[in-house]
Amino acid sequence: MQRIYADNSATTPVSERALSAMLPHFRESFGNPSAIYSYGQEAKKTLEGARRAVAKALGALGTEIYFTSGGTEADNWAIFGACESKRAKGRHIISTEIEHSAVLRSLDKMRNRGYEITLLRPDKNGQITPAQLEAAIRKDTVLVSVMTANNVVGTVLPIKELCAAAHKHRVIFHTDAVQAAGHIPINVRELGVDLLSISAHKFHGPKGAGALFAKLALKIEPQIVGGGQEKGYRSGTENIPGIAGMAAALTECAENMESNTARLTALRDTLIQNALKIPGVHLTGDAVDRLPGHASFVVEGGRDSAHLIKLLDEEGICASSGSACAASSKEAPHVLTALGYDAGASRGALRITLSHLNTEEEVISVCEALPRVIERFRRMKDPKIL
Amino acid sequence: MQRIYADNSATTPVSERALSAMLPHFRESFGNPSAIYSYGQEAKKTLEGARRAVAKALGALGTEIYFTSGGTEADNWAIFGACESKRAKGRHIISTEIEHSAVLRSLDKMRNRGYEITLLRPDKNGQITPAQLEAAIRKDTVLVSVMTANNVVGTVLPIKELCAAAHKHRVIFHTDAVQAAGHIPINVRELGVDLLSISAHKFHGPKGAGALFAKLALKIEPQIVGGGQEKGYRSGTENIPGIAGMAAALTECAENMESNTARLTALRDTLIQNALKIPGVHLTGDAVDRLPGHASFVVEGGRDSAHLIKLLDEEGICASSGSACAASSKEAPHVLTALGYDAGASRGALRITLSHLNTEEEVISVCEALPRVIERFRRMKDPKIL
Repeated sequence: MQRIYADNSATTPVSERALSAMLPHFRESFGNPSAIYSYGQEAKKTLEGARRAVAKALGALGTEIYFTSGGTEADNWAIFGACESKRAKGRHIISTEIEHSAVLRSLDKMRNRGYEITLLRPDKNGQITPAQLEAAIRKDTVLVSVMTANNVVGTVLPIKELCAAAHKHRVIFHTDAVQAAGHIPINVRELGVDLLSISAHKFHGPKGAGALFAKLALKIEPQIVGGGQEKGYRSGTENIPGIAGMAAALTECAENMESNTARLTALRDTLIQNALKIPGVHLTGDAVDRLPGHASFVVEGGRDSAHLIKLLDEEGICASSGSACAASSKEAPHVLTALGYDAGASRGALRITLSHLNTEEEVISVCEALPRVIERFRRMKDPKIL
Repeated sequence: MQRIYADNSATTPVSERALSAMLPHFRESFGNPSAIYSYGQEAKKTLEGARRAVAKALGALGTEIYFTSGGTEADNWAIFGACESKRAKGRHIISTEIEHSAVLRSLDKMRNRGYEITLLRPDKNGQITPAQLEAAIRKDTVLVSVMTANNVVGTVLPIKELCAAAHKHRVIFHTDAVQAAGHIPINVRELGVDLLSISAHKFHGPKGAGALFAKLALKIEPQIVGGGQEKGYRSGTENIPGIAGMAAALTECAENMESNTARLTALRDTLIQNALKIPGVHLTGDAVDRLPGHASFVVEGGRDSAHLIKLLDEEGICASSGSACAASSKEAPHVLTALGYDAGASRGALRITLSHLNTEEEVISVCEALPRVIERFRRMKDPKIL
């Protein structure tokens, strides 16, 4: 059976180009970029070239890009670091109920440290309005953190407008762009954001690499300290292969974005249109402002969305119920709840996320499998089947 | 000119075996281990297999190994996490003056948070005695952190005895084993330590991967939070290729340790004996209890050890003045100062660190180059030569 990988919001395969960029740095050009001999300086050149490439893809300056071990570290750092830097101003943070757990759990930590957290509730589509944000801003608000695109339902939020609302009140704005980077155009200047997190493995770069964009004027407290790498903001020997792979992958995505978006949007819409023909299947998230390859649904009449995923797995289709992380941590599907869905709806959550590697044939196969799988899903009585 | 890489304490090339263990996980078996379909579960199996392998090499249980992005993160986590967990007990930490900056800068952070830090001063060889440690322990001491082996001078410290001294007073013991793991036998049960940090790229694994051993009974506060990976102790999608590479590299080191140690010790001693024939060259660190491939010296009569490194570089030899990190951060050579050397001595610091990949011919070439290079080093008048 041919496997159809349709869980690209969870992770993606490393592109050939990204892997090619990585390979020389494992065994041949493996020097430590902090070393002063020429061989170390070669590694330094690779590092700084990758930094410029990532910066270019995001519309940033190289000096505004800090490499991390991934999106989670970048999100944690943005929140902890910004709050520590702005301690004198206050202890209030605004975010949303539909953030990734990398943001929500960081906010929990800040709550334990005496911060007050306001979580905005989005509308049914997953949208937050600038007016809603402005109404929540207080004199002691130090940070607003709103994701660029939601992982569970694919909604793309109006970051430019939300950021402008925060800046009107001189509040720092962070966006978790882990699901967005490489998939929709991101220009930090156009968006106006102060902090932006990305994760390489979500856009065909390697796992273990990510970055935080931090506006030049903004000095946030480092969280991982030591040898003074990344200008003292993030210590630890730089993961040169990972960083080179991330830069190549992000560059590739930027180069191909227009054609990929057109193709993926068409495939996604085919998928959505076909799925919605099945009675009791509903689209979740914004029908218009959503990630190109992202299709998410609630399927009525089943017992546990894990059954649905396992049944698709039997057909060779890799999909998910929402967040990969939540699948593991048995967390409540907080996103659907925030969008106003009841617990019954969450039991039928389904996310199918495509990449440019998916073919039309694969999408047709998924469309053909869905009615059959959903019928079995609804008939499934034994909760111990898994 | 053939390059001789002799800076293996800074970083090492990834071994063929480690790279082979990594390669399938970039493009073929790339699933997210948190995903519940079979393809994700394959990744989970790789992850848990790697965890068992790392545990086995360290004499630990799999449930005691937490994967991190490297040694620096592991060191930071051990210190911040242990202190946070033992907040109720007190706010005093004991460490040494010769720790890596990943530990020293973490201690600076704790000092800023109101902790008192006692840094033990080692003897000229870099040794700390259990009696010295015991004398510093107070009722409010929450943590002792002493490195297993020093990066700058190669001294191997008596961790088992130091740990026993700490435990006599019921104080948690952490050791930064970044320079030691893969190079000398490490068994966490024999040593008795509660926390131990390792970094893959120091033992022919990839950059961007490390681990923290934390004794089963010890629950330390997570520092990077989110999706709940690593049983909730370290969130972020697991760097499966990096982790698989680290496990393979550490296993390989453990398998070959006896023969590598014998061969490396002989090569190192040849190097030391020849270097010490040059007038005004002195060995730093412990002559007996030192890392197998580690040779470190003070060369009298020069202006700046960076000149020495550049002159060796011109001969195709990659060596360092001490710590790779310090080279970049222009930090004072705190280790030599702690060992009682004056600033003049630090200006002639030289570290040559071998791996099993170095040949006898290479070591002979280095021995032949040293007198010539040191003569040029001493003649060098212009500080702007670099």
